[in-house]
Amino acid sequence: MSSNSDKILGIDLGGTRIKTGLVDPQGNILLSKNFLTSAELGRQKALKRIVKIIKKLVKIYTQFGSKPNLIGIGAPGVIDRAQGIIKHSPNLPDWNEVPLAQLIAEEAGIPTFMDKDANVVTYGEKWIGAGQDFQNFVCLTLGTGVGSGLFLNGRPWFGNQGSGPEFGHVTIEPRGEPCGCGNRGCLETLASASHLVKRAQKGLDKKIPTLLGELLNHKTKPLTAKVVYEAARRGDPFCISLFADLGRYLGIALANMVHTLLLEGVILGGGLSKASTIFLPYLEKEFNKRLTMADSKLISIRISSLGEKSGILGAARMAKERQNK
Amino acid sequence: MSSNSDKILGIDLGGTRIKTGLVDPQGNILLSKNFLTSAELGRQKALKRIVKIIKKLVKIYTQFGSKPNLIGIGAPGVIDRAQGIIKHSPNLPDWNEVPLAQLIAEEAGIPTFMDKDANVVTYGEKWIGAGQDFQNFVCLTLGTGVGSGLFLNGRPWFGNQGSGPEFGHVTIEPRGEPCGCGNRGCLETLASASHLVKRAQKGLDKKIPTLLGELLNHKTKPLTAKVVYEAARRGDPFCISLFADLGRYLGIALANMVHTLLLEGVILGGGLSKASTIFLPYLEKEFNKRLTMADSKLISIRISSLGEKSGILGAARMAKERQNK
Repeated sequence: MSSNSDKILGIDLGGTRIKTGLVDPQGNILLSKNFLTSAELGRQKALKRIVKIIKKLVKIYTQFGSKPNLIGIGAPGVIDRAQGIIKHSPNLPDWNEVPLAQLIAEEAGIPTFMDKDANVVTYGEKWIGAGQDFQNFVCLTLGTGVGSGLFLNGRPWFGNQGSGPEFGHVTIEPRGEPCGCGNRGCLETLASASHLVKRAQKGLDKKIPTLLGELLNHKTKPLTAKVVYEAARRGDPFCISLFADLGRYLGIALANMVHTLLLEGVILGGGLSKASTIFLPYLEKEFNKRLTMADSKLISIRISSLGEKSGILGAARMAKERQNK
Repeated sequence: MSSNSDKILGIDLGGTRIKTGLVDPQGNILLSKNFLTSAELGRQKALKRIVKIIKKLVKIYTQFGSKPNLIGIGAPGVIDRAQGIIKHSPNLPDWNEVPLAQLIAEEAGIPTFMDKDANVVTYGEKWIGAGQDFQNFVCLTLGTGVGSGLFLNGRPWFGNQGSGPEFGHVTIEPRGEPCGCGNRGCLETLASASHLVKRAQKGLDKKIPTLLGELLNHKTKPLTAKVVYEAARRGDPFCISLFADLGRYLGIALANMVHTLLLEGVILGGGLSKASTIFLPYLEKEFNKRLTMADSKLISIRISSLGEKSGILGAARMAKERQNK
C-alpha cells in the first residue's frame, strides 16, 4: 500500500462550520468530515483546534493508504492568495493576518493553498459543475453576502490586485442602502440573504400582511432567508415581492457584467440559489430587457450543480491547479 | 524606389468626417487627408465616393514610393470585426450590412481590417498613447455616445460575441432616462455629450440662471457640449453642476468596472474628455468613495494622450496586430 496518493484534502472554511472532504482525481468525495469552526473560543484557541483536527484527519487517511498530496482551503473574507493569509474576514472577527495555509502545511506536512471562498466555488463549477463547457463566465455565490469568481479564456481572473473580482460591491442603486463595505447600493445590499431578511423584518415591523408571522410560530423561531423562501413558496405575496426585487436587481447586475465582458455564461450558487425557482423568472426578464447590445440567447444562466459540495471540490481543484503552475 | 513600404493607411470613419493618415512603424503620421463622409448622398453614392477617394490616395502614395501595405478602419456602430462589415450604425442611417473592408481591399488591392471605433482608439492608446504601460485597462470614448475598449493581459478583449465591450450601456440608474439602445439609465445617458446638451437645453427651457443664453448670442448659435464647457469654464454654476453630475456618474461606473476586473488603469478619450479639467475632480472623489474593495492608489485614471489622432493611429495599429495573428 502506497503511503502517498493522488487524493487532495478540500477544506471549506465557514464562519460557523468547516467542511472537509478527501477528493479523488475524478471529483469523488471519498471521505468527508465536518466540524465546528468554534470562532467563539478566540482566534488562537480556535486556530489551534482546527489545525489539530486537520492533522489528525491526515494521519487517519495516511494510515488507510490515502494520504492527501495536497490541501486546498476556501476561506471567507479578504485573502492573500499568494501567501495563504486571511487578511480579515467579516465572518471571523479578529482573524486578521492569519497565515492559515502555512500553519496547516507545517503541521500536516503537506503543501497547502488557500483562496477566497467564491473563487474556490468557481474552480469547482468549472471542473465538474455547471460551468464545464464555459470559457468565459462569472459565478455568484448568493449567501450572507454576495461573492464572485470569474473565468476568462478558461482561466480564473484575479486582476491587478486583491483576490479576484468583487462583483458583490458594484453599485446598482447609487442612492441605495449602506453596505458593510462602506459603499451604498451595492449588489450585496440588494441580493444577499442578510439583506433579504432585513427587508422581511421591516415588513413584519410594519405589520404588512404576510405568512411570515405564522411560520415563525409567533417569534419562537428566528427569521432566516429559509423562512422567507418557505413563505414565498406558499404564495405569500409580500415574500414573493422580496424575491422578485432580488431577481430584478440580479438581472440588472448580470446584464452589466455581460455588457462589460460579453460572457457566455453565468452560474448562481450559494444557499440563496435554492430559491431560484422563485426569483429566476424575474431575473431573466430583467436581464433580457437590459441586455440591448448582446444576444441574450447566446448566454446561459445556470444554477450551481455542485451545491453544498462546491466548496470542498473547488478547494481541491484550486490546490491542484496552483500546484501545477 | 520600392513600390512597397512598411506604412499603414489608418482611416477614422465618422458620421460627418473621414480622417486618414499614412502611419509609419514608429507611429508618425507622415501624410494626412480628411474629407467628408457625405452620408446625405445616400449609401450607395457615398460609399462609391469614399472608396474612390481611398483608391486615389493609395495611388498617390504609391507614386511617391510609400504604398501602404495595410489599411485599417475604425468605424462607428455595430461592427462584424472578422468580416469587416458595418452591421448597422446610429451615425450612418441605412448603412446596414456594409462590407466596407472588402470594398476598399478590392479597389485598393491592399489587405484591409475594420474594427469598432472605440476598440481602435484603445489599440492606439496602448501602442503609443496613455496606456503604454498598462496591461489591464479600459478606455472610454466620451463623445456623442460613450464607446469602450478593454485590454486584459496586454491584449484586446472581445468576449464571446459582438465587437467588444459595451460599457456605455451598463445600467447606472435603474429608473433613469431612456437610452437609444432600448435600455434606460445607461452610462451613455449620464456621461455623453448628447445627453449633456439635452440637460443644458432643459435648463434653458426652465429659465435656470446660466451664462448659456449669452454665449449662444440669443440663440443664433447651436447649443453644443463645447458651449456648455465654455460656460462652465467661465464659472457658470448650472453648467458646472452638469459636469459635476457627469463626473460622479463616471466615477460610479469606473468603480464598478474596477470592482469587476481589478484593472490597473482607465483612459478617458473622445471630444468630451477635453472638459476633464472640470469633471475629473468630481469623478475621482466619487470613484474613491465607491471603490471599497480595491486600493484606488494602485489605479491610474488618465486622459487620452493621442486626442484626435487616436482614431488614425489606432486603426493602423489594429490592422498591424490583426495581420500578424
